[in-house]
Amino acid sequence: MNLSRYLAERRRLIDRALRQALRQHQRPPRTLARAMRYSLFAGGKRIRPILALASGEVVGATIECVLPFACAIEMIHTYSLIHDDLPAMDDDDLRRGKPTSHVVFGEGMAILAGDGLLTEAFRVMAEGGLRDGHDRTAALRAIREVAAGAGAIGMVGGQVADLEAESRKPTRALVEYIHTRKTAALIRASVRVGAVLGAARPAQFARLDRYGMALGLAFQVADDILDVEGATEKTGKRTGRDEELKKVTYPAAVGMTGAKQRAQELLDDALAALRPFGVAAEPLRQIATFVVGRALHP
Amino acid sequence: MNLSRYLAERRRLIDRALRQALRQHQRPPRTLARAMRYSLFAGGKRIRPILALASGEVVGATIECVLPFACAIEMIHTYSLIHDDLPAMDDDDLRRGKPTSHVVFGEGMAILAGDGLLTEAFRVMAEGGLRDGHDRTAALRAIREVAAGAGAIGMVGGQVADLEAESRKPTRALVEYIHTRKTAALIRASVRVGAVLGAARPAQFARLDRYGMALGLAFQVADDILDVEGATEKTGKRTGRDEELKKVTYPAAVGMTGAKQRAQELLDDALAALRPFGVAAEPLRQIATFVVGRALHP
Repeated sequence: MNLSRYLAERRRLIDRALRQALRQHQRPPRTLARAMRYSLFAGGKRIRPILALASGEVVGATIECVLPFACAIEMIHTYSLIHDDLPAMDDDDLRRGKPTSHVVFGEGMAILAGDGLLTEAFRVMAEGGLRDGHDRTAALRAIREVAAGAGAIGMVGGQVADLEAESRKPTRALVEYIHTRKTAALIRASVRVGAVLGAARPAQFARLDRYGMALGLAFQVADDILDVEGATEKTGKRTGRDEELKKVTYPAAVGMTGAKQRAQELLDDALAALRPFGVAAEPLRQIATFVVGRALHP
Repeated sequence: MNLSRYLAERRRLIDRALRQALRQHQRPPRTLARAMRYSLFAGGKRIRPILALASGEVVGATIECVLPFACAIEMIHTYSLIHDDLPAMDDDDLRRGKPTSHVVFGEGMAILAGDGLLTEAFRVMAEGGLRDGHDRTAALRAIREVAAGAGAIGMVGGQVADLEAESRKPTRALVEYIHTRKTAALIRASVRVGAVLGAARPAQFARLDRYGMALGLAFQVADDILDVEGATEKTGKRTGRDEELKKVTYPAAVGMTGAKQRAQELLDDALAALRPFGVAAEPLRQIATFVVGRALHP
């Protein structure tokens, strides 16, 4: 398979579904709709929804069945970026090469655009689960997975830990605590959602879950590395921000060589977890190799 | 029935369920858990979850079945207060007689506590729906109701309209637009959730919905009146804030006499909608009379 063609096709599919998902009988206030769209269509790579679809594929879930949940995960990812960029949080003015939401719409509107995206995500999942022929129990389980991955013991918890850790001594234990929650939890949930919707057997579920956990963590380690070594033109973010903000990162905790070793280790583990799946897991394999490879072989 | 005894009993039931709902196998970071609890147990009257339970009662839903959804609605109401009080929004330092979340925990943590409560609310509903014997379709419908009431065409949309309307000329059309979204949408959703979980027939559903809509709007009209005429010791908020913030309110749009007339009209409509239900709807009747009565006969 050709990864970049695969990713481009999936991205198109997801973008179309996202546009449909935001359409409603009643309309939200115009500025709110604009602010939600501004961040949702700001050039995101759609890695999380693509992972949900690809994981579902491994265990035979249809794209139609996974798509609303994939969209919801991207909406939640987007809300988290909007809130993360706020002055009271990381105070970032640039994201994916564009001014951040609060710079364009003001702080109050940015908070509300995030709240709107988070809430609409759950509406989209509930509506997806209510479609004809959908397994309602699987839909409720998938909603639970997303909420757990995004909530107080997942992403929001990670954000809090991240916020509290600024200026603290970066140890390996601390950085793993933060990264497993802040970034890995939602990526892992994306993979688990595909597995749940495809009615994965327990052994399959455990393997996909191990892949999701390893990839999720690897993703943030790679991000940490790129924040030091990447170029703004490529990442769309100002590099060196982590050091400015005194963030707890992998390179800060274990050095650049250690960070790269850890990324490689996690990639190996992610690929090992997929071994029994054969060709159906090829997208998941190539995505992992690509995501981590960006940081290891720039 | 004795309303204050009924409300006190329900409040106890809901508080216990809320405490259970926040307990998880894994623990969220301590500050986050503290911030979420601080606002959730700050002495709220629990009107919305009580309405969900009372509406369910009318059509025969069990308390056990409605309770997780009732809790979720209160969590969402609480998150909305936290975000609403932020400096970038209404910038309030006092709520229910206590310092607001961002005053105690800082702005970043307050945003995240709100995000956490909103996300956990959906986890609680999904878990409720997955309990043995629960109708999964009804659970998904109830989640959809809550998300729609709280989201971009509901409460969040109303907040945006409210934010944008500051310093605009308060017309009756504008104030109805804002209030139906900002306050009425979630109250209406609470009533609809009870109806959905009790498998209300269409005619029953329509009547309960009309009650929820009228009461929801009456609730905010009463709040507007109390902001002018109430005493801080009684309302737990600084009075006169609406005028300070140049909010679009009912008294500002149609005068105090007009506002009181409208509140009475809405109360009459809410009670009329309940007429065919007999004694099972007595709690809904008394709640409406009490909520509006506070403002009409202080």
